Amino acid sequence: MADSADSHASDATQAVYERASMDTRVGYGSDPVLVVVDLQVGFTDPENPLGGDLTGVIERTNDLLDAAHASDVPVVFTRIVSTHPDHADFGIWQEKIPRLDTLTAGSKWVDIDERLSLENGDHVLDKRQASAFHETELGSMLVAWGVDTVVVTGCTTSGCIRATVVDACAHGYRTVVPGEAVGDRAPEPHESNVFDMDAKYADVRPTDEVAEYLSGTLE
Amino acid sequence: MADSADSHASDATQAVYERASMDTRVGYGSDPVLVVVDLQVGFTDPENPLGGDLTGVIERTNDLLDAAHASDVPVVFTRIVSTHPDHADFGIWQEKIPRLDTLTAGSKWVDIDERLSLENGDHVLDKRQASAFHETELGSMLVAWGVDTVVVTGCTTSGCIRATVVDACAHGYRTVVPGEAVGDRAPEPHESNVFDMDAKYADVRPTDEVAEYLSGTLE
Amino acid sequence: MADSADSHASDATQAVYERASMDTRVGYGSDPVLVVVDLQVGFTDPENPLGGDLTGVIERTNDLLDAAHASDVPVVFTRIVSTHPDHADFGIWQEKIPRLDTLTAGSKWVDIDERLSLENGDHVLDKRQASAFHETELGSMLVAWGVDTVVVTGCTTSGCIRATVVDACAHGYRTVVPGEAVGDRAPEPHESNVFDMDAKYADVRPTDEVAEYLSGTLE
Amino acid sequence: MADSADSHASDATQAVYERASMDTRVGYGSDPVLVVVDLQVGFTDPENPLGGDLTGVIERTNDLLDAAHASDVPVVFTRIVSTHPDHADFGIWQEKIPRLDTLTAGSKWVDIDERLSLENGDHVLDKRQASAFHETELGSMLVAWGVDTVVVTGCTTSGCIRATVVDACAHGYRTVVPGEAVGDRAPEPHESNVFDMDAKYADVRPTDEVAEYLSGTLE
Repeated sequence: MADSADSHASDATQAVYERASMDTRVGYGSDPVLVVVDLQVGFTDPENPLGGDLTGVIERTNDLLDAAHASDVPVVFTRIVSTHPDHADFGIWQEKIPRLDTLTAGSKWVDIDERLSLENGDHVLDKRQASAFHETELGSMLVAWGVDTVVVTGCTTSGCIRATVVDACAHGYRTVVPGEAVGDRAPEPHESNVFDMDAKYADVRPTDEVAEYLSGTLE
Repeated sequence: MADSADSHASDATQAVYERASMDTRVGYGSDPVLVVVDLQVGFTDPENPLGGDLTGVIERTNDLLDAAHASDVPVVFTRIVSTHPDHADFGIWQEKIPRLDTLTAGSKWVDIDERLSLENGDHVLDKRQASAFHETELGSMLVAWGVDTVVVTGCTTSGCIRATVVDACAHGYRTVVPGEAVGDRAPEPHESNVFDMDAKYADVRPTDEVAEYLSGTLE
Repeated sequence: MADSADSHASDATQAVYERASMDTRVGYGSDPVLVVVDLQVGFTDPENPLGGDLTGVIERTNDLLDAAHASDVPVVFTRIVSTHPDHADFGIWQEKIPRLDTLTAGSKWVDIDERLSLENGDHVLDKRQASAFHETELGSMLVAWGVDTVVVTGCTTSGCIRATVVDACAHGYRTVVPGEAVGDRAPEPHESNVFDMDAKYADVRPTDEVAEYLSGTLE
Repeated sequence: MADSADSHASDATQAVYERASMDTRVGYGSDPVLVVVDLQVGFTDPENPLGGDLTGVIERTNDLLDAAHASDVPVVFTRIVSTHPDHADFGIWQEKIPRLDTLTAGSKWVDIDERLSLENGDHVLDKRQASAFHETELGSMLVAWGVDTVVVTGCTTSGCIRATVVDACAHGYRTVVPGEAVGDRAPEPHESNVFDMDAKYADVRPTDEVAEYLSGTLE
């Protein structure tokens, strides 16, 4: 378990999880994809009620983007966008979090943050729920590309990162979370979800190591 | 927000979430289903490395079962069961949590805990990943039944409850978690996930109130 | 079975299907949606290699649109659109039907045919495979709306209509095909697929009757 | 286009399909799976109202099974099985085809036909709708196995074969149908669906060639 994930839980909790074999590493596969979740202005600009300061996450995600671009690893940027009247595509979620109404097609809040090193061949994928796999083309694109490992960065750890990671594992992918390249509005939900993901669905690893992996130089 | 969910987070975190409109109630619909997640022996018997003492959760779930049965609300019990050679149906998840191998068809660990008030007309649904919606018949059964509200109980809060709740919301359902009828191996992951679910995907409500709702007597 | 569907098959085939109970009517539910499949310029303009003359289908679909609009039945127009580099969102399908490459975002071929009575509150849904349910927001929108009956019109009978109808039934919906409001590039695939759908997944009904149903005046 | 598929359609239809680029071959990938659809007693015993004589299909599927087993290609047998009270897992489909009620867990009709060369390591997958991908574990198993090519045999061509093939293509897989190893209750629906699949979603190929491919000896 990554140190950062480990330090969150009490000794008693850790003992329970180790007994349940929830301290196992899955490891890296041979064909990765980098999925950058929801680093759109609505979440990276603190002026939006849903937003926060994610400067550090953006910087570390750029390190991973550089590694992926250099070795031709496919890159997918996701963003939450509503394109339907009355935000019908958000469904009940819109009733649960009314400020999702800011994330409407055409609004500045749906643009990918321009500090990110997005290149021409990268993919931008619109989603409408927390998981990047839910009712989107991500699943079939990964199959057609022959991907076996999904690296997930972006925000928020307790929302769309967590949901995407659970689905990536459920779909049959080795799933990796670079610990410093995911972030949240508040430290507590961030830490508890890093712990959960690392115990049950993904390997949480140091971002430098994941960058080496993506660049093909990890030994 | 339910008191139990509220008390977990710091004042600073709560302020951030309120600004993001993550303190909103969705409310109950008119056509509920009760989904009892994974109260199978492998999770309710502390002898299994994945198990723990969930006596309280079982008792409160029985209160909800009584209410659902009395008013003909459909009931679905889910359980994790592997039916394939080499646990191929668990896929990568099996590599992440090797002790999932105890949950094999034919083993006592996959039986629904006999302390539960399971009736003849209830549905038992086998799943292979955390979410009860993932690659199971749950989605189409709920559509055919005309359900609009999913009540989720059982275990574990930080695993299959959380994943099921996220998917229920994403599929378009009003989602309700009776706070005392979900449980976990350890208190910290339980609390942090109750907080997350209540903020973003579901209404966490007192179990007595949910029982009233299921019995059709909630005003 | 609708007369038009019936007349396609030989007496021997019809006898086999009747024995298998494949001549049963499901009937209409109380909460319909009208899904207009792929009546976009790429399919309705014979200049596109994928296109054909669908004037009759458009006229009959407009009758159904009038009925739906008059009684506030939700309407969804689907279209095939690629938004990713190298048409990655079409995946292997692009290799099977290379001329799908004409259906790129920004091209005139993805516009909904302007002869259709599209109103402001109608929904336009982009898809990337044959079925309107495959990796799109349609499933969760129908749940959030409380729909129980899916009426499917448009093109092509042997492609996206068939795939959408099979999925609508599989998702738990009563499914209705107004016989004169679906069309194809060639008469044989049209007829054989009307027969298949009517026998196994949907009720194929006269368009006038379906219009009455949508307007709420069917007795 | 395979000769058998070609001969079904009129010259006019073939011309329309060629113009639409619907005569393209996708070809084989490097990592296949063999999916044997619904060769269960309910469909292979003419005494069941849903059944017919599929002796030839079983023989040719056995040739493919021998090839797959010899080269360790994974094999999945699917079958339609209801495990819920009132066949709730069949949903609306049960209303459309009432004789599906014969396919209940515990009945002889759900057993895989014993003439098939099923081996210990093969996978048996229960499904509840036409497509073998719909709400089953097939999708995630194929991902975890690293499959890129899906070979589909069994029955019926106009039902579960067609639905499985459409979904295999939509999920991103190269899809192959060995023409003599799929069958139906009646010749007309068989032929029209072979034509449709070959034009739009799969390569229909001679069974001998597909056996060579599965055994790794196709040049």
